[in-house]
Amino acid sequence: MLQALRFEREALFALDQTQLPEREIVLELRSAAEVAEAIKRLSIRGAPMIGVAAGYGVALACLAGEPAADACELLVAARPTAVNLAHAARRVRDVALDGGAAAAVAEAVAIEAEEVAASDASASFGADLLAGVRTVMTHCNTGALAAPGRGCALSVVAELAQRGSLERVTATETRPLLQGARLTVYELARLGIPHELIVDGAAAGLIARGHVEAVIVGCDRVAANGDVANKVGTYGLALAAREAGIPFVVVGPTSTIDRSCDSGSEIEIEERDGSEVRSFRGAATCAVETVCRNPAFDVTPASLITALVTERGVARPVSGETIAALLP
Amino acid sequence: MLQALRFEREALFALDQTQLPEREIVLELRSAAEVAEAIKRLSIRGAPMIGVAAGYGVALACLAGEPAADACELLVAARPTAVNLAHAARRVRDVALDGGAAAAVAEAVAIEAEEVAASDASASFGADLLAGVRTVMTHCNTGALAAPGRGCALSVVAELAQRGSLERVTATETRPLLQGARLTVYELARLGIPHELIVDGAAAGLIARGHVEAVIVGCDRVAANGDVANKVGTYGLALAAREAGIPFVVVGPTSTIDRSCDSGSEIEIEERDGSEVRSFRGAATCAVETVCRNPAFDVTPASLITALVTERGVARPVSGETIAALLP
Repeated sequence: MLQALRFEREALFALDQTQLPEREIVLELRSAAEVAEAIKRLSIRGAPMIGVAAGYGVALACLAGEPAADACELLVAARPTAVNLAHAARRVRDVALDGGAAAAVAEAVAIEAEEVAASDASASFGADLLAGVRTVMTHCNTGALAAPGRGCALSVVAELAQRGSLERVTATETRPLLQGARLTVYELARLGIPHELIVDGAAAGLIARGHVEAVIVGCDRVAANGDVANKVGTYGLALAAREAGIPFVVVGPTSTIDRSCDSGSEIEIEERDGSEVRSFRGAATCAVETVCRNPAFDVTPASLITALVTERGVARPVSGETIAALLP
Repeated sequence: MLQALRFEREALFALDQTQLPEREIVLELRSAAEVAEAIKRLSIRGAPMIGVAAGYGVALACLAGEPAADACELLVAARPTAVNLAHAARRVRDVALDGGAAAAVAEAVAIEAEEVAASDASASFGADLLAGVRTVMTHCNTGALAAPGRGCALSVVAELAQRGSLERVTATETRPLLQGARLTVYELARLGIPHELIVDGAAAGLIARGHVEAVIVGCDRVAANGDVANKVGTYGLALAAREAGIPFVVVGPTSTIDRSCDSGSEIEIEERDGSEVRSFRGAATCAVETVCRNPAFDVTPASLITALVTERGVARPVSGETIAALLP
């Protein structure tokens, strides 16, 4: 199985996702600062995965005798939208205050184990929900590279394939950083699941033409009312799915639910550098002086989401009540 | 002013749009086959522009003493979705049957002049319709590179800028061939109109956040009932505009209206080669064996379109009746 992260002998080894699919390079990260930097440049990405990495980042600081609080702050600032990152970093920091480095490492390991279990449970709930579905569309990368275990939304896809109904996955390329083209296609090929790649702009028209029976995506943050922040482009897929009358399913561990955030309008949307839009791997798309707007996420209102699949069960319809019922 | 096509001394000179914005290379096309090839590989593109080019293509065949009917067939087959191409090629062919090469050339020149006049008239109608609008989003390229004169949708944008209300144009990059990033940004910079570039997936979320006051696009074919085929990605913008309650305006000369086509479901959607999706200006995005689906267009139903702006006036609401009223 694909392993994106591995903690061993006081270092976090991370498959550099910016280099995939051409090069499988493993980074050796030895400090919280190195982990934060890897998260920032998307060498490590995916909401659950950056949470786990941030936990290990705080543990690395503790092992080096550095203040856990400073490491936590540094890691939380690396990417503002995903809530898992802050949750995990603070959890390890709080444990370290009493228990020191050994407790911090144990807590980070526990967070990873929880996410692996969450991935399996979500896969099962999601595949039950979408039983018999033959064709799905997915956005960005939500597989084993994005979340420990088999991933989040892609774990459901893998489970559907394993149960035998799935005939084809349509993956959007997901500009600007092409996580769909580079990472999801790479994972689907490794899993032996039939798939095809499309540009992001082709998704809505294909959905309208009945090309897929369901759309399934991950999430970076879920507000208390069920509004979902996810990779930019998600909201457009949700509009198209509703118009076509097909399910639009969001998958994510409950660690992505932010109870302190009432609705999607309160979610801070990370704006990334315009250079990501102006080029890809050295290939320019426009003049270098072109002004670009580059929001990394968008918000899909709960009303457009058919179901939210978590490791604790399915919220359907998606509302403040059904989400609260999933939380401990 | 930017001139994408020029007919002179038995040749059609065309600015190679696949090379923009880096290189301004002018192709010298001396036969219908060369024109058809240039249209197919998108060196010449934009529904009105390929219509004009096809007219000149048939004229070139006549000048070379070749059968106009064969040239017409070749050109019509170059791209199946735009109806202007077939209209213009057949118009020149029909004139050539009686009048020979000289009449064919004159007809092609007349078609171009009509499109220039249509561009100016549409610009004026569109700017009246959107009077006072400060921010617009546009898709693909619909300027002087896509249609003779100032273009179609971008002629309205240019007119709004000239009248003084326009503060910012948001251009989508328009994967896979990046006509927005490469061509629209190039044209807007030449025109001195403030603009920004976004990835296609960012459009719907920005529309939802109130980032623009209107969306304005061109069209490749309009069915008799007002359904519009346009560059893939258009339909998603229309859904987002309706949801946000902002105008979604389509601009095109009446030559793009296909009276023989009852509705959008009858429009043939061109599927282009997957290699356009697999690479990004020469940089690979995924493994070369990846299967890609690459529809060049999608269909936006008339019900999502606030107004159709033509050189003969504005259809609003867009319906079979309002469109028929615009036609001679």
